[in-house]
Amino acid sequence: MATYTTTAPKQTTVISSESLLAQWQGHRQLTRRVIEAFPEKELFTFSIGGMRPFSALAGEMIGMARPGIVGIVNGNWGEFKDAPATTKEELLATWDEVTAEINARWPSIAPDRFQEVELAFGLYEGPIYATLFYFIDNEIHHRGQGYVYLRALGIEPPPFWDRDDK
Amino acid sequence: MATYTTTAPKQTTVISSESLLAQWQGHRQLTRRVIEAFPEKELFTFSIGGMRPFSALAGEMIGMARPGIVGIVNGNWGEFKDAPATTKEELLATWDEVTAEINARWPSIAPDRFQEVELAFGLYEGPIYATLFYFIDNEIHHRGQGYVYLRALGIEPPPFWDRDDK
Repeated sequence: MATYTTTAPKQTTVISSESLLAQWQGHRQLTRRVIEAFPEKELFTFSIGGMRPFSALAGEMIGMARPGIVGIVNGNWGEFKDAPATTKEELLATWDEVTAEINARWPSIAPDRFQEVELAFGLYEGPIYATLFYFIDNEIHHRGQGYVYLRALGIEPPPFWDRDDK
Repeated sequence: MATYTTTAPKQTTVISSESLLAQWQGHRQLTRRVIEAFPEKELFTFSIGGMRPFSALAGEMIGMARPGIVGIVNGNWGEFKDAPATTKEELLATWDEVTAEINARWPSIAPDRFQEVELAFGLYEGPIYATLFYFIDNEIHHRGQGYVYLRALGIEPPPFWDRDDK
């Protein structure tokens, strides 16, 4: 996990809770479009250098975010578990369920919650903000890998800077 | 650029300025190790699907971060410009210069600065936090692509979760 400091000068608002949600969902929206950009077959089979296909990387993101938002809100860290899907439609449907669940649960995050240090999934100790940043960073990291897969397949990926709903 | 809201409830400290610096430098430290992991020749030549070699992606990160930290601190947005290097040693030396410059300038960021909306590089409008997140996210994105290059070359990349100084 990332390096962190626990000193939090209360006078500095780097980013608001609402803006952080918008960041996360903006990234998730882009990742959704990357899933869509894959042909059905290659989503589940194409890989480079022995890495996992993009469906498995997206499954990892779901497996982190779905129990993750619950843990972030109330400290009940479920099991970190990849979400297997066998069709693009199924993967996108699960993705959208998680999107709705994050939006529904987010307002329940208490103001001081982001600075609380906790053992996420019983495995990773850090303040809640760092755990959440890890979810987002991990998604960007693996999505970047999906961009290479798409390029190798001759497919133009959606622009990285575009995080708006489509 | 990312979606953002400008409402900033002052009671919520999602992440402190110091922690955000640690996040950024933690990522930059990992990217440095990815640069190091490439063989000299492949750093400048290897690519997949018509993408740029990793030296060019790292040059883009430098070209964003070096003038970027100045703009973040004082609003003087220089030119966004890739930093060309011809050897790994030269690239790493420039990388380290930027690391030191970010650390030196960071404490000068005024507490309210992160919420100020500005036209970064005369091109991208958004609050300062969103511009900075864009620098970090862009680095994670391209570094993830570097991981695929390394795997395709049969080289084990440094672990993604390890952001500590080595």
